[in-house]
Amino acid sequence: MVTSSAPGKVYLFGEHAVVYGEPAVPCAIEKRARVTAREIDEGLRVHVDDLTLDGYTVEYSDGDGHPDLEVDESLVRAGVGYINEAVSQAREVADRPDAGFEIVVESDIPLGAGLGSSAAVVVAAIDAATRELGVELTPEEIADRAYRVEYEVQDGQASRADTFCSAMGGAVRVEGDDCRRIEGVGTLPFVIGYDGGAGDTGELVAGVRQLREEYEFAADTVGAIGDIVREGESVLGTDDYEALGKLLNFNHGLLAALGVSSRSLDAMVWAAREGGAAGAKLTGAGGGGCIVALDETDGALTALRYTPGCEDAFRAELDTDGVRRE
Amino acid sequence: MVTSSAPGKVYLFGEHAVVYGEPAVPCAIEKRARVTAREIDEGLRVHVDDLTLDGYTVEYSDGDGHPDLEVDESLVRAGVGYINEAVSQAREVADRPDAGFEIVVESDIPLGAGLGSSAAVVVAAIDAATRELGVELTPEEIADRAYRVEYEVQDGQASRADTFCSAMGGAVRVEGDDCRRIEGVGTLPFVIGYDGGAGDTGELVAGVRQLREEYEFAADTVGAIGDIVREGESVLGTDDYEALGKLLNFNHGLLAALGVSSRSLDAMVWAAREGGAAGAKLTGAGGGGCIVALDETDGALTALRYTPGCEDAFRAELDTDGVRRE
Repeated sequence: MVTSSAPGKVYLFGEHAVVYGEPAVPCAIEKRARVTAREIDEGLRVHVDDLTLDGYTVEYSDGDGHPDLEVDESLVRAGVGYINEAVSQAREVADRPDAGFEIVVESDIPLGAGLGSSAAVVVAAIDAATRELGVELTPEEIADRAYRVEYEVQDGQASRADTFCSAMGGAVRVEGDDCRRIEGVGTLPFVIGYDGGAGDTGELVAGVRQLREEYEFAADTVGAIGDIVREGESVLGTDDYEALGKLLNFNHGLLAALGVSSRSLDAMVWAAREGGAAGAKLTGAGGGGCIVALDETDGALTALRYTPGCEDAFRAELDTDGVRRE
Repeated sequence: MVTSSAPGKVYLFGEHAVVYGEPAVPCAIEKRARVTAREIDEGLRVHVDDLTLDGYTVEYSDGDGHPDLEVDESLVRAGVGYINEAVSQAREVADRPDAGFEIVVESDIPLGAGLGSSAAVVVAAIDAATRELGVELTPEEIADRAYRVEYEVQDGQASRADTFCSAMGGAVRVEGDDCRRIEGVGTLPFVIGYDGGAGDTGELVAGVRQLREEYEFAADTVGAIGDIVREGESVLGTDDYEALGKLLNFNHGLLAALGVSSRSLDAMVWAAREGGAAGAKLTGAGGGGCIVALDETDGALTALRYTPGCEDAFRAELDTDGVRRE
């Protein structure tokens, strides 16, 4: 039996613009998914706890349908889909196509909040399942296989960023298919606010695409986000939170211009800033979900906790560790 | 005795960017300042009602100081300063340097809210005082003299836009010193939300300047606002509120990126949008003050009235009339 864990992530800079070849900087955060893999005779048993819904257990063998469950079916299908594909990767790696698994998933990362919970689960699951079969992959190999899983489960709508960031840890630079760790980044005191909701990523991406095709200034705005990322990279190593915060704030405004902010995201961004954060922005696809702020004090956290529409607020510093055996 | 009135304005597009040579589109609104001028033997008596403070009366002759007043002195000084200079313009026009005046000012336009209340008062005052002395100026001449008054009173920090828009009415295009009416604009169903506050214009303008000097992408953002204005001009004649609204929303995001929005402005913008407005943005210098939304229904107005932080909300359609004798 092997337990592995992998971190969630926030986008410090560059979401949406990354779709058009601009660089982006996701950062791993100290919120993790833990996956335990135990080899069994045959089939796949999956136990999922705490993915924002009451724990559920799914048990099936190849060819069987899912049993009836009183939970949101799409969540179950997604959760099981990810595990199913992750286990397939492990079977392929170990050349053990018939290996059976019992998988237990636990996660501190709110599901569907844009914090990369599915990528973290997939990364941890591949690591745990391959180790359970006696094979040890490098983080880069795990990142690559986890990307393939997300690509498969999400019908071709996957970014390498989430899985790479979760496997490698730390701050990451993504530009097209090129992903690399940014070295020399110190502490990043992230505070996260979560409105309990989530935007429709496909719809949000399509909205930006439409604006960009219709208006030259929208294309320029996407380009300006790329410039913020390039500027941000040069500041990242310096611990100059004030400069970083200014860039976060600017990035947020440009995302708002592109139509991917929301009332609650803006309210949380302002709460964090007025609470004393050096800067704050929405993180991920937007339309709802999370904001990330930079704050060394407790000001932003407290302000967020008193903000109507903010369902959860927590500190989650940059996690320099990627996937690891527990 | 002559009474003249002149409208306030909103910026439909382009505030802040106009400082850097981009075009902007202020629009006169159906909220007016009314000024009554009566020639008296000598000196100047000013009665001001309802400029968001309880009415006050100032009476003084050349050389005298102001009497003690239990109102905000800066407001009094500003109000009296504008009237004083407007009356000087009338005296100069009529070649009657010693003409005395009793001036009564009433206004529907919230003071200091970025809706051009001072420009409207100056425009109406010049019109009323010159007419009282038997001279009739064209709206263009009044706009020019009113600009000189604002320039004088505001220590050289004045834009031609406010006074031109108030004198001419309708939708106006401003680019540098070139101001012209945009013809063929139909109804514009503005809804205005006011947070009861005001940003520090000088500070906000300086903040944008600093960002623009520090970051290339901030300069690009200013340029993108100019592009929105050019796009907006081509839509203005069509009554396509949906297209106009999209441009308002985008313009707001870029202003937010430039650091001139505020928590209450963003809250009002979202309330208006979720209430059904085709679009909404802050108007004026920002940091607090007003938002303008486009909405034919009562949805945005109702939503604003239930929004914490929104102190006043009202409908104020495009006013095609500029300065006029009542």
